[in-house]
Amino acid sequence: MPSEEQMRAAVQAYIDNYNAENLDGIVALFAADAQVEDPMGTPMKIGHAELREFFAVGIAAGARLHLDGSIRAVSNFAAFPFHVTLEWDGVQTRIDVIDTFEFDENGKVARMRAFFGAGNQSTVTGD
Amino acid sequence: MPSEEQMRAAVQAYIDNYNAENLDGIVALFAADAQVEDPMGTPMKIGHAELREFFAVGIAAGARLHLDGSIRAVSNFAAFPFHVTLEWDGVQTRIDVIDTFEFDENGKVARMRAFFGAGNQSTVTGD
Repeated sequence: MPSEEQMRAAVQAYIDNYNAENLDGIVALFAADAQVEDPMGTPMKIGHAELREFFAVGIAAGARLHLDGSIRAVSNFAAFPFHVTLEWDGVQTRIDVIDTFEFDENGKVARMRAFFGAGNQSTVTGD
Repeated sequence: MPSEEQMRAAVQAYIDNYNAENLDGIVALFAADAQVEDPMGTPMKIGHAELREFFAVGIAAGARLHLDGSIRAVSNFAAFPFHVTLEWDGVQTRIDVIDTFEFDENGKVARMRAFFGAGNQSTVTGD
């Protein structure tokens, strides 16, 4: 079972690898049969191949993850608040998200759930 | 199924009732057979009687909930980052928490999970 420190490090590695567009680094954090529901209510992505395909879409869109508070870690779970910035049809967009990670005994993410809805999306205006 | 707006209102009502020490108001937000795991890894509290007993402990300790960002809502789920302040053995303490609510078709909370560990607790120093 991973420690709280190990789970926090895994979350930080997820964010860092995402922002470095390191798809291998992201996928390596997950168990071979990991399940990802992102956002909740959409079809589950299962296993490294489907996860790779899924995360590649966000990375291709130029998505960047910004942590918005401390990483919560307890038992075999972590949860963290962040926002995503990405350009969508030429419009700079911000999405507020909370992810939860459930870890297996090897310290890999066995299940990820992402919480955000239409009301968590906003347009970033600028000159 | 509750709308995103209804789920966000339920989260706000949970925080407001908690801070007003309104135990009836808190319990009324939950389904009769609701399950609460707070924090993750501890024994599940099930049903209104156990929930009332559980929340009464936090209220007796003078715990106050402070929202730290937007309430995420999607499908039949909400998630929100907050911190709790309470006095523990005369020491002002802060705990960073993320809660997730799973709603039933009547808009009641059927399952609540709370994410925080030892590393999310800090002492608030003052003069």
